[in-house]
Amino acid sequence: MRAEIISVGTELLLGEIVDTNAAFLSEELAALGIELYHRTTVGDNAQRLKQAITEALARVDLVLTSGGLGPTADDLTKETVAEVLGLSLVLDRPSLEAIESYFAKTGRPMTENNYKQALIPEGGAALPNRKGTAPGVSVRKGGKWVVCLPGPPQELIPMFREYVRPQLEAESRGVIRSRVLRLYGMGESTLVQEIADLLSKQTNPALAPLASEGEVRLRITASAETVAEAEAAIIGLERKLRARLGHTIYGVDDETLEAVVVGFLKQRGETLAVAESCTGGLLANRITDVPGASAVFDRGVVAYSNRSKEELLGIPAAVIERAGAVSPEVATLMAQGVRDRTGSDWGIGITGIAGPGGGTAEKPVGLVYFALVGPGVSLVREARFTGDRQQIKRRTTQAVLDLFRRTLLPVNPES
Amino acid sequence: MRAEIISVGTELLLGEIVDTNAAFLSEELAALGIELYHRTTVGDNAQRLKQAITEALARVDLVLTSGGLGPTADDLTKETVAEVLGLSLVLDRPSLEAIESYFAKTGRPMTENNYKQALIPEGGAALPNRKGTAPGVSVRKGGKWVVCLPGPPQELIPMFREYVRPQLEAESRGVIRSRVLRLYGMGESTLVQEIADLLSKQTNPALAPLASEGEVRLRITASAETVAEAEAAIIGLERKLRARLGHTIYGVDDETLEAVVVGFLKQRGETLAVAESCTGGLLANRITDVPGASAVFDRGVVAYSNRSKEELLGIPAAVIERAGAVSPEVATLMAQGVRDRTGSDWGIGITGIAGPGGGTAEKPVGLVYFALVGPGVSLVREARFTGDRQQIKRRTTQAVLDLFRRTLLPVNPES
Repeated sequence: MRAEIISVGTELLLGEIVDTNAAFLSEELAALGIELYHRTTVGDNAQRLKQAITEALARVDLVLTSGGLGPTADDLTKETVAEVLGLSLVLDRPSLEAIESYFAKTGRPMTENNYKQALIPEGGAALPNRKGTAPGVSVRKGGKWVVCLPGPPQELIPMFREYVRPQLEAESRGVIRSRVLRLYGMGESTLVQEIADLLSKQTNPALAPLASEGEVRLRITASAETVAEAEAAIIGLERKLRARLGHTIYGVDDETLEAVVVGFLKQRGETLAVAESCTGGLLANRITDVPGASAVFDRGVVAYSNRSKEELLGIPAAVIERAGAVSPEVATLMAQGVRDRTGSDWGIGITGIAGPGGGTAEKPVGLVYFALVGPGVSLVREARFTGDRQQIKRRTTQAVLDLFRRTLLPVNPES
Repeated sequence: MRAEIISVGTELLLGEIVDTNAAFLSEELAALGIELYHRTTVGDNAQRLKQAITEALARVDLVLTSGGLGPTADDLTKETVAEVLGLSLVLDRPSLEAIESYFAKTGRPMTENNYKQALIPEGGAALPNRKGTAPGVSVRKGGKWVVCLPGPPQELIPMFREYVRPQLEAESRGVIRSRVLRLYGMGESTLVQEIADLLSKQTNPALAPLASEGEVRLRITASAETVAEAEAAIIGLERKLRARLGHTIYGVDDETLEAVVVGFLKQRGETLAVAESCTGGLLANRITDVPGASAVFDRGVVAYSNRSKEELLGIPAAVIERAGAVSPEVATLMAQGVRDRTGSDWGIGITGIAGPGGGTAEKPVGLVYFALVGPGVSLVREARFTGDRQQIKRRTTQAVLDLFRRTLLPVNPES
């Protein structure tokens, strides 16, 4: 099967947003073995959108659009698709009910223009939107198939996964499966050297490194006649990679470092409390993003001021005075303090300079100390991160979670 | 002037990288007042690239390409542009010298295929590449102008700024400027009705709503002869919108709710402490994302367990027992507790059910109470949010920050 993607939105042509939807859909199509040779971006303009859809349907049988499904007069995708296919728009009652219930639940008034979102080309199927009000549309006519998806990625991604991918799988010959291995603690160039032989030899399953913020990923993609064959091929290569890379691989697919850590703590029946300074609550936030974190996470304190370090964590002012707030001593006392005061099994302490201000020649922006204290364990680490304030916060929590993960591994490679 | 952008690279069509170049170039063209109605992405394929360039040159006078300038056989952009324009490729000696000196400097051997990078269409100008080996190209023929830029953003961006933008500025008439107004507390569909007359009447400056997670944005875009005229036009429309929408507008362009709140607190010389349950540190994290937040933010506590609410905030177990941990009483006591214990001017308390588990018929997932206590102020609010765990956390912090922002406004519309 061959497809094209049309991204719709004047905000794209003004450069106000980066088109991550096109990359997501491209990757999904590649994984399904569907050929994609062409992507187009047009603004919220009926004439140019019509031309783009017409041209795409002349070249291929499947067109995926993103954007232009909202309630405003600028949102023209369904109208234009219907026009190109020679279909009229009809009210989809389940979509209308979903929109009404969305407004009822949020307590906001539903305005007249929201009804427009429940209109779909006749003969088409509405694709429910679990994260917003605009349903998607899948419509076929005369051997051509158009799928319209909403613009916000948090709506487009689950809708594609839930409703579109299964249909595409059913219609494409053979199957393609992929798995992403997530690594922490090895740069991309080192990784590429470590597995150079596998990277050059592999064609099916294919192996590709993907650079990513604060970690590295490896994608394994296998094509086969059946799902079982594809998965067996992936597992075979994954075993080789795990033998080579060991605990540098921390997770697969959407698994996050925080989810791995929360999972380990649940298995062990242990609890955690965290004391953060420069990360400002990001570590607690990441841990509490994991559903069910409350079983293992007792509390977090963001001890930003020196006084709060004394009051919340019992750190003597003299130590802060002598060693400095950004020091291995204070990181360790933060971890011990939050652990002792909560009776948690584990305590984490983080102190550093996230910038942009506050750095000195001796203690520059990006310098971070973090400590982990637990049963028979007391570790403290120094790290120097680059980037802006948010990147330094993010990279610090990655390093902290990875240290904790390695410490919790059945065989502990950090000890 | 009208332009199109063609992004070249199979890695784009495989979804391996996100096309940030297209967004960068789009934004630059918009700022220069150059109209962009169409973007295309094709792979490293001579036939489809030729078709894309031919079609684009039929529609517009200026085509910008990114990618496909490297030394490998896959890199076809210059060859294809030369073919479409009916030009031959000639060796550019300064480019060859630059490539040779690049290899001499890095100590890597220069392979034969690197000579290809020094070829440019006859009559064209090579654009030096300060960050890599492949020069860009600017070539004109018969009223058409093609600019070829390298794919890596760290090469494309400086090359565009240094060599392409000055030429475009010299040739484009007029300028375009835009400003984004950020709103909280009004849904997109309500907003569209409130300003329906302005939306339909406005052409220059143009006005467009942009939906966004947890807020709504309005973009004003003005084209004019000079920057001063464009900015005056924006300010004129912005005044009308502010008169209509008042404090629903909280910021402009990249300004966040947390930055507005931190700014207000700095102006007032006041401090804040926060006590979070269901948001798990996200509020503290957002506040500490603002550079200089340490001047106003003393500490945050993430009181996840009931015991931590008692110990960290002094909330009587009897109150939690009677009213429930998710209740207006507990939210208020959290705000008061963290304020009293820190001596901060303001305290915020948040409690709720972020899901996916933990909901009941009476207290469903998404139910949140948040309280704000400060000088002469004690407010508590109930809200019901939809979405997944992370969306509920995010939406809760939006609502909390907005309540705080409105409370801190010189004239307080919440009181």
